[in-house]
Parts: sequence; C-alpha cells; structure tokens
Amino acid sequence: MDKFEHLYHTLSGFMNLTSADKKLIRILFKEVTFKKGTLFLKQGKICDHLGFICKGIFRYYIDRDGEDKTYNFATEGDFLCNYESLIQCAPSAKHIEAIELSEVLVISKKDLQRFYSEVRDGNLFGRLHMENVYAVTIRQLISQYTESAEERYLKFLRMHPTLNQRIPQYYIASFIGVKPQSLSRIRKRLARRLIS
Amino acid sequence: MDKFEHLYHTLSGFMNLTSADKKLIRILFKEVTFKKGTLFLKQGKICDHLGFICKGIFRYYIDRDGEDKTYNFATEGDFLCNYESLIQCAPSAKHIEAIELSEVLVISKKDLQRFYSEVRDGNLFGRLHMENVYAVTIRQLISQYTESAEERYLKFLRMHPTLNQRIPQYYIASFIGVKPQSLSRIRKRLARRLIS
Repeated sequence: MDKFEHLYHTLSGFMNLTSADKKLIRILFKEVTFKKGTLFLKQGKICDHLGFICKGIFRYYIDRDGEDKTYNFATEGDFLCNYESLIQCAPSAKHIEAIELSEVLVISKKDLQRFYSEVRDGNLFGRLHMENVYAVTIRQLISQYTESAEERYLKFLRMHPTLNQRIPQYYIASFIGVKPQSLSRIRKRLARRLIS
Repeated sequence: MDKFEHLYHTLSGFMNLTSADKKLIRILFKEVTFKKGTLFLKQGKICDHLGFICKGIFRYYIDRDGEDKTYNFATEGDFLCNYESLIQCAPSAKHIEAIELSEVLVISKKDLQRFYSEVRDGNLFGRLHMENVYAVTIRQLISQYTESAEERYLKFLRMHPTLNQRIPQYYIASFIGVKPQSLSRIRKRLARRLIS
C-alpha cells in the first residue's frame, strides 16, 4: 500500500477525509527513513514532531546511567510521539529508537496545528486520538504496577502477535520488567502448558 | 458569578463561544448540588457524565478493603470526571466524593457527544482539554513515584494555594503519601524554615 493510503486508512477510522484534506495531508507529512538504531526522538530534547509508522518498529526507552529500560513499542499503523513532551514543550524523558529499518510519515508540531485547524475533521481526530492515547497510557501504567511479568508477557503477545519474532528478547524482557533469563523461563513454562 | 457564566469563562480559555453555543450549553448541562460526603462517581460504576465545579471541593480516592487513598482534588473551575472510565466504558477504579457542599454543572456522556459535534469549536475544546488532562495526569503519576512527601506537599500548596485551609489534613496526608503525623512534622519543619 502507498504510504499515504496507509495513513488515510488509519485516519478514516476516526474521521471522514475529503479530497482537499488528502491533498493537504500530502503536503504536511514528509517521508522519512530511519535506519536501525537511529532516533526518532532523543531523551532530553523537546518533541516537536509526530510520526505515523508505515514500516518498521520503534521502542520507547529511558537511559539511566547507561542502563536502559524499555517502556513501549510501536509498529506499522501506530503514531509515534512523546505527547507529554510535545504538549508541554518539556524535555523528553525518553528516547524513541528505530529497532528495524523503518519508514515514517513525519509532521512537525507547527504543521500539526495546521492539520487540526485546516483539515475539516482535524480536531475531531485530535480529540479521539488523545482520548485513545490517554486510555492506553493509563492501562499500561496500571499494568506495570499491578500485573506479574507473565501476565504482561501474555498481554504483549495478544497486543502485538507478530512482533514477538521481530523484537530482540532482551527488549521484551525489559518491557515486562524482568531479566532476559527470567523471560526465558516464562516462555518455557508457557510452552509446557501449551503442550500438556 | 452566574454558574453558566463561570463555565463560559473557563471554556473561553480554549475556544470562541457563539451565542448559539451558549444557548445549547444551557440545555446540555444541568445544575446539581452535592452534599458533603456524597459521590459524584462511585468506584465500580461506569462513569457516564462529566462535571464542571462552580463551588466546592471533590477528592478522587480508591477504597481498598476499607482503607482509602486520596489521589487528587478538584475545585472551582475544574472539570470533574474519570476519563479512563468514560472513554473505555470501564468500571471506575475510583470514587469521586464531595468534601464540601458543592455546586456542579453536569453533562451526560450522550450530551457531551452533542456538545462536541454541535458546539462550533466543540472538538477543538475536546482536543485541548484531553491534551491538558493527559499532561497533568502524567505529571502527577511521575510526581507520585519520584518526589518526596515534602516536595509533593510544597507542590500541592503551589497548585492549590487556597485549598490547604479547606481540606482536612488527613486527606492531604493521604494525597502526598504519608501518615497524618508525618505531614504534621513536615509542616512544622517548613514553618521553622520560614521563620529562620
């Protein structure tokens, strides 16, 4: 699928797009390729752009004195942003890194304001998207503090059924909050349960 | 100030209101009085309404086996809602209780949809309001896990300079995550520092 068709398809889940809207969107979003290991956003910088992933995977992580902790993944069809940083013009607490060669449609914060005001249902999309971001963020935070590593791993598999093969296991271990050896034990235990 | 004038004033911080908008808002929002100790929302129920506080104070709290933990306060000019519950149609994890005799303009979830679609800048307000709710929620969560009780108390005083006298100290203690005796010690320490 053409990259912009992919974006229109996702936006259509929230709003109706006119042909004038589509034309403007082609002007506002730029195609950017991220090589594996490069950053969409650097910890400490103010996030001034938003992305839509057409191909690839990104992880959100915090670097604390060289040790990193993965908080989230995003892949095809997901939007990519540190909203806390974008909304408040505050330095980002997280890196957002491509963990595969990735293709992204990127819009600057300035052009995002044009999107909201000039695309007919721009603010409708903005509201519904923010509601969604809010609900997902709260669910993830609650999960982080209330669920066991096994529950979090099972939820990860349900939410991202195709990603398990594409993401290095040590990132997944960090995401669910255990050492890679513990994830390995969880996987063996689950496999035994599937067989028996 | 008339209750609706108070609401228009707050909404005007986000959007322009036409006279037709104001007329519709008077139809969609209902005036409700909450006696001290009554609930705006009960833990376990799905939140299907949003409020605007014209007078009074509410606290958000979780009841866990009879012990309660205060998460937030809201007062004049604030909106009142459990957005996780409203957006996802999920049971509320929290009670929202009036801790003073309070006067609120309440809109049902159904009428909130009318507000978004029929008020000219309804979705603009919705987007900006959700961005704000998101940013504030994330800041509060980070504060809860990274700041000391004293830092949280000072922040509470900065954010709600008039509320300190109106809210029972044991709710404030619960909000900053300490026993009432510890809050008492923090207050004495801060007072000594102010004198010296």
